[in-house]
Amino acid sequence: MSIPVPPVPSFPPAQFTLTSVKGLSAAGVKAGIKASGNPDVGLLVSDAPMAAAGIFTQNHYAAAPVTLSRTHLARSGGLVRAVIVNSGNANACTGAQGEKDALEMCERVAKALGCPVEQVLVCSTGVIGVKLPMDKVRAGIDAALAEKANDLEAGRRFLSAIMTTDAYPKEASAQHAGATIAGVCKGAGMIEPNMATMLAFMATDWDLRAEQLKRSLPTIAASSFNAVHVDTHTSTNDTLLLLSTRALAPPTDWARHVEPVAKRLSWLIARDGEGATKVTTIEVTGAASDEAAKAIARRVASSALVRTALFGNDPNWGRFTSQVGNAPELRHPKALSCVLQGIEVFKQGEPTAFDRAAASKAMAAEDVKLELKLGDGRGHATVMTSDLGYRYVQVNAEYTT
Amino acid sequence: MSIPVPPVPSFPPAQFTLTSVKGLSAAGVKAGIKASGNPDVGLLVSDAPMAAAGIFTQNHYAAAPVTLSRTHLARSGGLVRAVIVNSGNANACTGAQGEKDALEMCERVAKALGCPVEQVLVCSTGVIGVKLPMDKVRAGIDAALAEKANDLEAGRRFLSAIMTTDAYPKEASAQHAGATIAGVCKGAGMIEPNMATMLAFMATDWDLRAEQLKRSLPTIAASSFNAVHVDTHTSTNDTLLLLSTRALAPPTDWARHVEPVAKRLSWLIARDGEGATKVTTIEVTGAASDEAAKAIARRVASSALVRTALFGNDPNWGRFTSQVGNAPELRHPKALSCVLQGIEVFKQGEPTAFDRAAASKAMAAEDVKLELKLGDGRGHATVMTSDLGYRYVQVNAEYTT
Repeated sequence: MSIPVPPVPSFPPAQFTLTSVKGLSAAGVKAGIKASGNPDVGLLVSDAPMAAAGIFTQNHYAAAPVTLSRTHLARSGGLVRAVIVNSGNANACTGAQGEKDALEMCERVAKALGCPVEQVLVCSTGVIGVKLPMDKVRAGIDAALAEKANDLEAGRRFLSAIMTTDAYPKEASAQHAGATIAGVCKGAGMIEPNMATMLAFMATDWDLRAEQLKRSLPTIAASSFNAVHVDTHTSTNDTLLLLSTRALAPPTDWARHVEPVAKRLSWLIARDGEGATKVTTIEVTGAASDEAAKAIARRVASSALVRTALFGNDPNWGRFTSQVGNAPELRHPKALSCVLQGIEVFKQGEPTAFDRAAASKAMAAEDVKLELKLGDGRGHATVMTSDLGYRYVQVNAEYTT
Repeated sequence: MSIPVPPVPSFPPAQFTLTSVKGLSAAGVKAGIKASGNPDVGLLVSDAPMAAAGIFTQNHYAAAPVTLSRTHLARSGGLVRAVIVNSGNANACTGAQGEKDALEMCERVAKALGCPVEQVLVCSTGVIGVKLPMDKVRAGIDAALAEKANDLEAGRRFLSAIMTTDAYPKEASAQHAGATIAGVCKGAGMIEPNMATMLAFMATDWDLRAEQLKRSLPTIAASSFNAVHVDTHTSTNDTLLLLSTRALAPPTDWARHVEPVAKRLSWLIARDGEGATKVTTIEVTGAASDEAAKAIARRVASSALVRTALFGNDPNWGRFTSQVGNAPELRHPKALSCVLQGIEVFKQGEPTAFDRAAASKAMAAEDVKLELKLGDGRGHATVMTSDLGYRYVQVNAEYTT
């Protein structure tokens, strides 16, 4: 069947990337792990040990590289020299051999750099349940070590090496008083991310201790990457790393400057939902608590009925309010108002006489905002969701593990 | 865009219907509420007061007829003479006028039958947020009262009058030692039932007290209608009624004979998921508790990724196991085995070398079974889900409240 492919959005390349961060080199090479022949081994290396913190998948079937990177972060006290990444194979559900292979990847990098093995982190993404082709991986690592550089092109090659089903490269950056915050990520279909996995790498040249990164990363993720994971359906390999090369003195509000970069990266992932045509930001206010707001926002964002209405530009307030009405966290149903793209479609528990055609037209945008205003308290939460269209079905019905 | 419509399944008409139950008459008439001109007012009347129990939507925005029927059941002590139903308009989110209209429907039937108003229950289904066209409703009620009869055709007319987006009529029946258990229902897209609502009416001529019906109905629903509502996303109007005309002495295990009728009705609803091509029964065994099993089964059943894989006949064990792996209720991930249509695709935490083509072929069936065997305890649960295909998107993206 012929399903129209929504136009792939294009975004101007970020002005800075990971290699713009002082002391950080990168590489991306073609090792032949992917059948497509695209780049599939990426490497990040810092001149001196950098501080690192990570957030990893909560899935019970966490892949071997996830388990190993967690261990290495703990053993090294959050001081690392390198991150080695491969795409095309997730090294998940691969048993004891998978654990050995992940360790060998770190050992090979550590040996070349002359650092302890626990100062190397590893990430994999791609198909699961298939053993890594280690001959190709070894050659890829050696080539990446040989080619690593600290120019913009090397950073871009790293980015291309971590991509799998992504429709476009995902990067974001900012500068503040001479310091750089840069990030790249990969991932699509984030509402319930599939085996394709979400990987994100952010780095800054501020001199932050691992403890500081660790303390702030959950807050940064809560308003960005974790605001997209609406079903808490994390994949086996999901990894978010925040690195600091410790070159410059940081401002006290450093985390505030990292947040927009994280938000932009996660928006780019939501926008790349398979077949998605837009990102809808769902904002719940006036809930009994922040937790209640989050639960309600997620309930609305994960509904297939809501997501198809968003795809169809259907200002179907019944879908939105019905999902809120199902939430056990709701206290005063009659107080609910619902604002879609600035148009009030439901007020104090009843539908308004809004212009349906105008609302539908307003929904045909790349950024859609749905405000759900409750009368239960002061709790609020924001989540992002992608719409669910024909291409989503095609991509997922025909995807093979 | 041209989306192929999956063939509409046809099922042989049930041998018995509601009017086969001793003492029960029915009617179904065209009142002009539906733009299509199809029947839209249905009536059930018993010769003498019958015992009744109901399960209603948990949605905070329960429609006026739901609230009123709950009240009438309580006031009448579960003894009712009639149920009046309209389709084409849900009388939900209609404020005080909606409450008046629901009451007037009951009053009109009660007056004609010469019974107290609380002995009449009312159900509505259709669009929400629109006031009932009461002139048409009144004329429809009068016509239904005039035409009610206790033959098979009258029962079928009632069934046709409760349908909305249903692709086919839904009925089931059984007989046991001369007694009849019959049921009809309407509903589609049950994974997250939309405004189209689920209505189900089951009746038997056994002499059961309202208390007995009330006590057993939750158990009957748990293995049938509530096993399909995987997201607890009930609509504003969902109603399940169990009626007993009290003509014959019941066996002690009467509920055991009602269950298969309820199960068949709910299977027919799951099969009518918008654009669905099959019903998948997900059976979780070996969970830490029945509650844990239910939570895990629902998590798998409600995943858009799982449902698209089922649509595509893709034996994508990664989707199934990844959803189990996300469940906080899981204790021993390495013990998980996964059997799809009798084929073991995942064993003790690792994929097996199964024949992918054969498994895909086995999935191309109207009834698919997915067994998830845990090693956590003795808890078990079964849920039904429909697959998610192109037609689901089309129906829901182009549906208008």
